[in-house]
Amino acid sequence: MTDVTGFFYPRTASGAAALIPPPPWYYSGDLLTVEYRTDPTRVADLLPAPLEPAPEDPGAVALIWADWQSCSGSREELLDPVRSQYKEAFVVVRCAFRGVTYSRCVFIWVDKDFAIARGMHQGYPKKLGSIWQTRPHAFPHASPAIGPGGVFGATLAAADRRIAEAVVTLREPSETNGFVNAHKMAHHRIYPDIAGEGDAFAELVESGASEFAAGQAWRGDAELRLYDAPTEELSRLEVHEIIGGYHRQVGVVWNGGRTLARLAPGSA
Amino acid sequence: MTDVTGFFYPRTASGAAALIPPPPWYYSGDLLTVEYRTDPTRVADLLPAPLEPAPEDPGAVALIWADWQSCSGSREELLDPVRSQYKEAFVVVRCAFRGVTYSRCVFIWVDKDFAIARGMHQGYPKKLGSIWQTRPHAFPHASPAIGPGGVFGATLAAADRRIAEAVVTLREPSETNGFVNAHKMAHHRIYPDIAGEGDAFAELVESGASEFAAGQAWRGDAELRLYDAPTEELSRLEVHEIIGGYHRQVGVVWNGGRTLARLAPGSA
Amino acid sequence: MTDVTGFFYPRTASGAAALIPPPPWYYSGDLLTVEYRTDPTRVADLLPAPLEPAPEDPGAVALIWADWQSCSGSREELLDPVRSQYKEAFVVVRCAFRGVTYSRCVFIWVDKDFAIARGMHQGYPKKLGSIWQTRPHAFPHASPAIGPGGVFGATLAAADRRIAEAVVTLREPSETNGFVNAHKMAHHRIYPDIAGEGDAFAELVESGASEFAAGQAWRGDAELRLYDAPTEELSRLEVHEIIGGYHRQVGVVWNGGRTLARLAPGSA
Amino acid sequence: MTDVTGFFYPRTASGAAALIPPPPWYYSGDLLTVEYRTDPTRVADLLPAPLEPAPEDPGAVALIWADWQSCSGSREELLDPVRSQYKEAFVVVRCAFRGVTYSRCVFIWVDKDFAIARGMHQGYPKKLGSIWQTRPHAFPHASPAIGPGGVFGATLAAADRRIAEAVVTLREPSETNGFVNAHKMAHHRIYPDIAGEGDAFAELVESGASEFAAGQAWRGDAELRLYDAPTEELSRLEVHEIIGGYHRQVGVVWNGGRTLARLAPGSA
Repeated sequence: MTDVTGFFYPRTASGAAALIPPPPWYYSGDLLTVEYRTDPTRVADLLPAPLEPAPEDPGAVALIWADWQSCSGSREELLDPVRSQYKEAFVVVRCAFRGVTYSRCVFIWVDKDFAIARGMHQGYPKKLGSIWQTRPHAFPHASPAIGPGGVFGATLAAADRRIAEAVVTLREPSETNGFVNAHKMAHHRIYPDIAGEGDAFAELVESGASEFAAGQAWRGDAELRLYDAPTEELSRLEVHEIIGGYHRQVGVVWNGGRTLARLAPGSA
Repeated sequence: MTDVTGFFYPRTASGAAALIPPPPWYYSGDLLTVEYRTDPTRVADLLPAPLEPAPEDPGAVALIWADWQSCSGSREELLDPVRSQYKEAFVVVRCAFRGVTYSRCVFIWVDKDFAIARGMHQGYPKKLGSIWQTRPHAFPHASPAIGPGGVFGATLAAADRRIAEAVVTLREPSETNGFVNAHKMAHHRIYPDIAGEGDAFAELVESGASEFAAGQAWRGDAELRLYDAPTEELSRLEVHEIIGGYHRQVGVVWNGGRTLARLAPGSA
Repeated sequence: MTDVTGFFYPRTASGAAALIPPPPWYYSGDLLTVEYRTDPTRVADLLPAPLEPAPEDPGAVALIWADWQSCSGSREELLDPVRSQYKEAFVVVRCAFRGVTYSRCVFIWVDKDFAIARGMHQGYPKKLGSIWQTRPHAFPHASPAIGPGGVFGATLAAADRRIAEAVVTLREPSETNGFVNAHKMAHHRIYPDIAGEGDAFAELVESGASEFAAGQAWRGDAELRLYDAPTEELSRLEVHEIIGGYHRQVGVVWNGGRTLARLAPGSA
Repeated sequence: MTDVTGFFYPRTASGAAALIPPPPWYYSGDLLTVEYRTDPTRVADLLPAPLEPAPEDPGAVALIWADWQSCSGSREELLDPVRSQYKEAFVVVRCAFRGVTYSRCVFIWVDKDFAIARGMHQGYPKKLGSIWQTRPHAFPHASPAIGPGGVFGATLAAADRRIAEAVVTLREPSETNGFVNAHKMAHHRIYPDIAGEGDAFAELVESGASEFAAGQAWRGDAELRLYDAPTEELSRLEVHEIIGGYHRQVGVVWNGGRTLARLAPGSA
């Protein structure tokens, strides 16, 4: 009998083929965030038991674009950057569990398979998408500056349909990068039963960065357009009021989380 | 508290955004198969407990390219074929569990996210890849015929490296499409623990087609080249002896499977 | 001094690196066509001198999806099908030159670089796009049949926006695959001046298939939806009246054309 | 008769659909360069008449990766960055024409269609490829710094085969970003005849940046691996001696060039 290893699929004797290595995972990247308010009942529709709506401002939503470079502890992916760079757009709301307020990613699109696999582990509901955001650069010939008047665009498409577009014009330094994505994440990890009856495994987990460094956040005006698509429900979170747009460069380490509640029979 | 629905991520009140619908799943496609023998210990290296090597011809391997169109029971994906068509290449070996011989997919690459998600459910260890195989067509101007002398090529790349190439020249009708992928599949379904210690959930499942229709299989000569890559272990299954090449068109329904053994503490 | 060779970029001593080989070029593929009528002035807007509107039915348009396998005379691309298979969607109108009616491609999107280069040579105004069309297959589990009641969908996206969708339901055999794309093509081949004043080279050419074989054409009902996009003008060709939908499998050889008129100073 | 407009295909009444706008074109980006020496006869093989080998160091080659954001004078592409960002890898040698030394791009791969079209205009022999290079970032969690010890990787693939890989370790500030790509470019612009006999149009042009701004260049050690591929000739420029590796951030404007010599009958 063979001992196979590897954090995730495929597992082999050496583990070399695994799609992702074990945490910790390291990230350097730029976040472009638009916060807005929608109908709180639309947010509540995305909060399964045992979660409850956040006690304050329960209709607040953050739509965040991220342009990442990431690696394992070996940092070997940085020299083969097709395995290191990826982009994502994700939708965060807040919720409450046992009196604690959490952030929660309700929709997310990425453009690499290793990012899908990491998301599966973390409970992010990932799909593939095409994600683009304007980059700052040292030379302004074809780039905005991170500073007053800097204009950043961002787009999201899935299944060949554009489903979100944002424009953020920076105005001033900000103490925060917004408040919606500021808590630990509360996510469901689910595995449908192979026999087709409910989930073989389901749990609620919390996790957050084990290390976090951030540059000066900038705040500004934001426009946000959401488009209908037959396979997406992002546009149900209609934009009622823009709270603000933000830009921030960050460095992050993620190193696991903990189970808050086991939810399925086989998960006891 | 909200009841969310959806077979897989993301789950919402309506389930419309779920990356995949519940089974049954329907497939029409062309299979190009190369069967060969490798060192049986290399196959055994890929068989974790409680699996054992197949009692006969334990070094037999099938490398299969598939060009699929697929849909749910609604068939709606067929009218939005970006959600219906995908290609895959997968490596199948045989193994034994409690005296029964099973097929087992040890490596697989696909080119769509819905295929990754379906594979996760079925226990296929899917990654994204770039997969191509020659298509037969009614007109020979730029296509082979399915018949004597028809030549089909196939290639597989992942992370911008080509890792396999095959050429199959059909010679004669065949009773089978090979023998390696002819059993029910025995797969591990795994979910690493969020706290980082082993698996939160792990089980061995069996599944197979609930319906299967197939055209005339053709057999012929095959060439197969496997290339090293730092993130892949396919080339460890070195080609010692070619058994044969096959082409067959099939229609398949997949509708779940059953648990053979629960393997992790949280899976009891 | 070196003699370099190669039909197109890059040219080298051996010609091996050229993006495309010299014609003849060979094609096997499936065409899904929707013909409709739009405002004839919108068609005329796309006909530069010395072309004139077609004398009859000048507002007729064909939007054609094609799923191709293609190769050079060596047929070597068929064994490396990433260099052989591509999809395209193209918009054809008719026009007149010196009393002869021609077809003319006014917009076209493809998904491979070799197809862009071939189009440049032929005067097709190619961009990259994401093109999908339902495939027929021997097994109906996830495929329509080419015959009465067969339903085929097709979509087109560019720059992450969906710009066209069609559904064709086949009803009966047809003598033709439509009439709009039934003439020789009259295309402009242009090369803007490097100094920025007009064209360094411009000519009007005609070309068509040097060999053409086709299966039974099928005719049926069609739906067509065109969507606005800031970088596209397809939706200006609004759908006023659907003429019909068609499906046909074809084999084609293309082997050059001839100059109808030289149009720029440097082209005399 | 209609006046159509648009710098390049497709031309329409408004010009809105043109794949690229007229110059000037604006760029902000990062260049990662490896300079090395190969057999000078292999360079000469890539220099068609009327070009001659450079008088000094004729075997010098620069392989350059570039991570670009680009736009037209309207800057509108920056807010829809799928139309603004692209990556490229290109191979530059030097040559002489009428006693003047020029740089010349002999192979180039990009990942967007607008970049192909711009290259066609400029005489760059562009193909599609998959190009990746490590990005510097303000936070070191998953990024190198631009400075001593900063390690940058870069890879190039085309047609699903990896054809080049580099690793550059920065050591010290440098006065230059290398010398091979330091001259104006001398490129052939070619258009094969539609009737299949030679070129309908061919000319030798020179062009360079109309504006150029650059940050501190850094120099360091470099590794470079070139791989054979049936459709590429980059590996013929074998690495005999590494000259050095460089990193530099630049801002560039390109605004046309001038004809040095008309070379084909139809180009007189």
